[in-house]
Amino acid sequence: MNDKVSDLINLMAKLPGLGPKSSKRIVLHLMKHKDTYLLKISNLMGLLHDSIKKCETCGNLDCKSPCEICSDKNRDETTICVVEEMTDLWAIEKASIYRGKYHILNGALSIIDGVTPETLNIDSLFARVSHNKIKELIIATNSTLEGRTTGQYIAETFKDTVEKISFLAHGIPIGSEMDYLDDGTLNIAFSERKSF
Amino acid sequence: MNDKVSDLINLMAKLPGLGPKSSKRIVLHLMKHKDTYLLKISNLMGLLHDSIKKCETCGNLDCKSPCEICSDKNRDETTICVVEEMTDLWAIEKASIYRGKYHILNGALSIIDGVTPETLNIDSLFARVSHNKIKELIIATNSTLEGRTTGQYIAETFKDTVEKISFLAHGIPIGSEMDYLDDGTLNIAFSERKSF
Repeated sequence: MNDKVSDLINLMAKLPGLGPKSSKRIVLHLMKHKDTYLLKISNLMGLLHDSIKKCETCGNLDCKSPCEICSDKNRDETTICVVEEMTDLWAIEKASIYRGKYHILNGALSIIDGVTPETLNIDSLFARVSHNKIKELIIATNSTLEGRTTGQYIAETFKDTVEKISFLAHGIPIGSEMDYLDDGTLNIAFSERKSF
Repeated sequence: MNDKVSDLINLMAKLPGLGPKSSKRIVLHLMKHKDTYLLKISNLMGLLHDSIKKCETCGNLDCKSPCEICSDKNRDETTICVVEEMTDLWAIEKASIYRGKYHILNGALSIIDGVTPETLNIDSLFARVSHNKIKELIIATNSTLEGRTTGQYIAETFKDTVEKISFLAHGIPIGSEMDYLDDGTLNIAFSERKSF
């Protein structure tokens, strides 16, 4: 196997969700389709590398800082939705349900992974809250142990400075079958049930 | 989400073993580590694209044609090991057990996938066999239905032109537990058992 090939396989094997076997399979596929995939992906990655900027306001990665969402005058500046990762922002944007701004924490508190409040992108949230009139902080961290701890921490930290702090609702996901739900979800769905 | 990002996610989602979710996760990781991963992978892919050549002799992808293995004078020219894919060649090379040449079929016969003897790299094997003194053809196609059919086809096709045609041995893999083996493997291990 030639050096460039093995370098690429080793490097790609470190990407999340990939390992030596899957990386090898992907590189073989790329080599077999060198013009449709290898060249295009290489070029796109190069372009992306040259243009990525971290938004100083919200922590989003975009081609400019402030990012497109932060500089959009049509979005509600008084509401900030706090998420863990950029992918969470993408998911909410895809659903087209929210017209406020975002704040990306870049992770969640975790003792095991050594993530403390200092390593998260919380300082700039302080700055945003104190310089602007923020009416609501919507906490949309993941519903995992780490995500919920982080959400709770943010809520505690900002409870005296922001008018309203809200959490996303928990319950049965649309389209799911009762039989497949975990006890925690069923529990919260019962305790938060609504009158007809 | 910006255009370059979504283009890259969509393109990478088509790679084997990846889908929209895993591709999104990888691209996010690349963006977060833009110098350690994004730039390096992009550059390696670019270099690889510019240097890939298909070996006219065996069908291997390398930086030159004939490839390194085909042009290696220290390897036995009279033995050819027939494999389906380049990854099979890499696996055999990694084990350092074989010092002959290879021939890469670039797939296996499959009615469902529309792979016929004409689409496989068999013509050049004919040329190799007729122009050189090939003493043995080792068939090392996968032990799947398609691989075994292909192996059988190659054996039938070349039985009158090559002195010896051999198949790799079947049996219990080293280090495996009896309890986890499938019936087919156990069956062949029993029927091919060797006297002490």
